[in-house]
Amino acid sequence: MQRSAQHQHLPQPMEPRDPQWQEKVRGSFARQKAMLLIGAELVEVGPGRCEIHLPFRDDLTQQNNYFHAGIIATVVDSAGGYAGFSLMPAGSDVLTVEYKLNLLAPGKGERLVAIGEVVKCGRNLVITRGEVYAVNNGRSIHCATMQQTLMTMRDLAKEKQA
Amino acid sequence: MQRSAQHQHLPQPMEPRDPQWQEKVRGSFARQKAMLLIGAELVEVGPGRCEIHLPFRDDLTQQNNYFHAGIIATVVDSAGGYAGFSLMPAGSDVLTVEYKLNLLAPGKGERLVAIGEVVKCGRNLVITRGEVYAVNNGRSIHCATMQQTLMTMRDLAKEKQA
Amino acid sequence: MQRSAQHQHLPQPMEPRDPQWQEKVRGSFARQKAMLLIGAELVEVGPGRCEIHLPFRDDLTQQNNYFHAGIIATVVDSAGGYAGFSLMPAGSDVLTVEYKLNLLAPGKGERLVAIGEVVKCGRNLVITRGEVYAVNNGRSIHCATMQQTLMTMRDLAKEKQA
Amino acid sequence: MQRSAQHQHLPQPMEPRDPQWQEKVRGSFARQKAMLLIGAELVEVGPGRCEIHLPFRDDLTQQNNYFHAGIIATVVDSAGGYAGFSLMPAGSDVLTVEYKLNLLAPGKGERLVAIGEVVKCGRNLVITRGEVYAVNNGRSIHCATMQQTLMTMRDLAKEKQA
Repeated sequence: MQRSAQHQHLPQPMEPRDPQWQEKVRGSFARQKAMLLIGAELVEVGPGRCEIHLPFRDDLTQQNNYFHAGIIATVVDSAGGYAGFSLMPAGSDVLTVEYKLNLLAPGKGERLVAIGEVVKCGRNLVITRGEVYAVNNGRSIHCATMQQTLMTMRDLAKEKQA
Repeated sequence: MQRSAQHQHLPQPMEPRDPQWQEKVRGSFARQKAMLLIGAELVEVGPGRCEIHLPFRDDLTQQNNYFHAGIIATVVDSAGGYAGFSLMPAGSDVLTVEYKLNLLAPGKGERLVAIGEVVKCGRNLVITRGEVYAVNNGRSIHCATMQQTLMTMRDLAKEKQA
Repeated sequence: MQRSAQHQHLPQPMEPRDPQWQEKVRGSFARQKAMLLIGAELVEVGPGRCEIHLPFRDDLTQQNNYFHAGIIATVVDSAGGYAGFSLMPAGSDVLTVEYKLNLLAPGKGERLVAIGEVVKCGRNLVITRGEVYAVNNGRSIHCATMQQTLMTMRDLAKEKQA
Repeated sequence: MQRSAQHQHLPQPMEPRDPQWQEKVRGSFARQKAMLLIGAELVEVGPGRCEIHLPFRDDLTQQNNYFHAGIIATVVDSAGGYAGFSLMPAGSDVLTVEYKLNLLAPGKGERLVAIGEVVKCGRNLVITRGEVYAVNNGRSIHCATMQQTLMTMRDLAKEKQA
């Protein structure tokens, strides 16, 4: 986002608090059977960032043969959730409190690319943003944008030990 | 919603503008392959109201073996969308502009019940509300609540003929 | 909301956890100088419910001389916030995490009536719904609907003493 | 937002469709009496972008003497609305359909800076994003983020003449 000369705001770097953050995210994704059902792939995960791809399949469509909005929501909710989870402390779990999704263009293409990024990482709540692009013949269309609230579910027993 | 003695607000009756509203909704639902993939059932549709059920299946789950949030979103987005579509004029299509979903409790149960209802039916925009319940041993837990904006996509060619 | 014969869901009664809930809510409202600035009145507060009225004033308007959307948001955010605060334990404070507001009709009238009600009261998070009506010559128009997430900010020092 | 090497997405340039866009936005802002009441200033407007500042005043606060959430909402809703309005055709008006606001940090500071930017400009609907910063002793805290849907209200009489 461009800023006026009058106002400069620098984003804070995102620091993972769990040294095993990458394994943790990949392990949790692998246990989500709904991701397997639709064929979603965890392509990239960084501290506070996650990218999920979904190849087109005929059985993921709505009445016009485009990606179903529920499928678009599923991949971007997960991308945001794992972006947040990557920054959460060891022994905690992630919970989606809520999200809001705007659908910008039909999900028409051979692949969806969903990118989640952390906007603010608080002690209990993590706010993320998500974008979904539909890739068609190498051209990418911005098809959805999301704003999401996550909660860190702490394992209090483990926190006391630490 | 209870109202104080000082304030009474009576909801308007919902009048379908397309005599074929029921066939239209059922036909569109039947063409959504994503609904078939997850096993969703259109149980009831009335003017401005739609109820979709989803029996539990192991491949619809997240890491704790409950219904995946994306699946919960998919059924309630559809329930709201068809509640709105039932009131739209003949020759038009329905588009989800956006929705916001709060997850209230884990989707733990043998069945999800998603209910969509129209709050306001305008000329172009239709606002709906959706609720999702997880039914477990005959007990029902309120597991999600949604607020949604739909758009009526008119077929201008057909409107001119009419 | 009507339910099908197949599905009955009974709302839970709302139990305040702080015997001083009414004084607490009224005291907090009285300290909000922004409510005084716009002339908002706390008309009624019950466990999990709050009603705020706002008489029309020329300096609360947008370009067409109706209530400004920001003013509508201000009163319904407060109504939802105090509905939730009424159920929070003694020694805690309320924080709005987020809300989503649909504007349904112009805020045209001699008075706004904003009603907030709790949908789900969890340990940390409270989910509410809000409605705004514009009252004009005794007729009331539904002009906005809101879905909101609140957080209970506990005073840990006080909780240990209790 | 960073993109992976696999995925590059270039934003489209924003082209105003009304040569008088700047006067139109400034004129509309000046007619909003609620903006005058709270002391908001339209600092900058570009095609698809708007920045509004709000100096601190004691009568704009909540119970802890920070900017009231309703006031934060008011300025960012306006910033998003005018960002969208700047791109709308001559003879049309702007309507906020809905928005969703996350409050990230207390509105504590001598000034709020609200920035609205268009994400997608469609024929009828315009989607924007808004950020609010609280500036305190030259340091700026990201205190709110918003996602908003606007509608272009066309003056059909004027469109036919054109």
